[in-house]
Amino acid sequence: MSELDQLYLDDLDVGQRFTSGSYVMEAARIKEFAAEFDPQPFHLNEAAAQMSLFKGLVASGWHTAAVAMRLLVTGGLPFANGIIGVGGEIAWPRPTRPGDILRVESEIVEITPSRSKPHQGIVTIRSTMFNQHRDPVYMLTAKLLVFRRPI
Amino acid sequence: MSELDQLYLDDLDVGQRFTSGSYVMEAARIKEFAAEFDPQPFHLNEAAAQMSLFKGLVASGWHTAAVAMRLLVTGGLPFANGIIGVGGEIAWPRPTRPGDILRVESEIVEITPSRSKPHQGIVTIRSTMFNQHRDPVYMLTAKLLVFRRPI
Repeated sequence: MSELDQLYLDDLDVGQRFTSGSYVMEAARIKEFAAEFDPQPFHLNEAAAQMSLFKGLVASGWHTAAVAMRLLVTGGLPFANGIIGVGGEIAWPRPTRPGDILRVESEIVEITPSRSKPHQGIVTIRSTMFNQHRDPVYMLTAKLLVFRRPI
Repeated sequence: MSELDQLYLDDLDVGQRFTSGSYVMEAARIKEFAAEFDPQPFHLNEAAAQMSLFKGLVASGWHTAAVAMRLLVTGGLPFANGIIGVGGEIAWPRPTRPGDILRVESEIVEITPSRSKPHQGIVTIRSTMFNQHRDPVYMLTAKLLVFRRPI
């Protein structure tokens, strides 16, 4: 991506949309991530997962969230100063499963220039990650710190 | 933890509190997690991080969130059916840095039995992760699916 594609606060408008590349969720990585951060049977073992509410192996919601961040950082949201979140809302309307091909679509929903710091603002982004069936698997409404173009 | 410590919906009350064990955030793991999921300079490299807004290496917010989940799953929230989130709100009031010793405290803020499914309900938990200085680094208000004790 060239520097021309790197956006500053000055370049953003409400309604502007962005689409990420794609990411394939692998079963082995689902189990490794879960062993480290979310060791529950339905994330660790196919047989145990089959007996669970999910009827099969599913990724930790935090693994799903981390993959969405990867897709945003690697081209899905080309902000010049990076993606610096202060907080937000998350939802997992359905689980992510092995082999799912994931993609994030984002839209700017609000831009609030800082009153006290004229070179920055808070940009609210609504992102949805879809699987290959175009089912939403993750929604993130995030407040991001974005800077103005340096003079 | 014995089975007696594993809680069902029947065992929960608003105001009930839980405390997790602790976790040390290591610089090497901060960089590895970031390389995979959040490859931004302030998570990858001390020198670049020193030049950034953060004035030093900081963990990805999603790494911080994943560590909080590990602390909740490994004793911080002893729910018999596991920790199954449907969504929530997150905030990172300050960054997590290498060497930080993290601990999560949680409180039940709402219990909503399902109208259509008598054996389950949604429990809202407010969790705060503190560092060793007792500064909050992460806040999660999560809606969790919790089941009644099997008859």
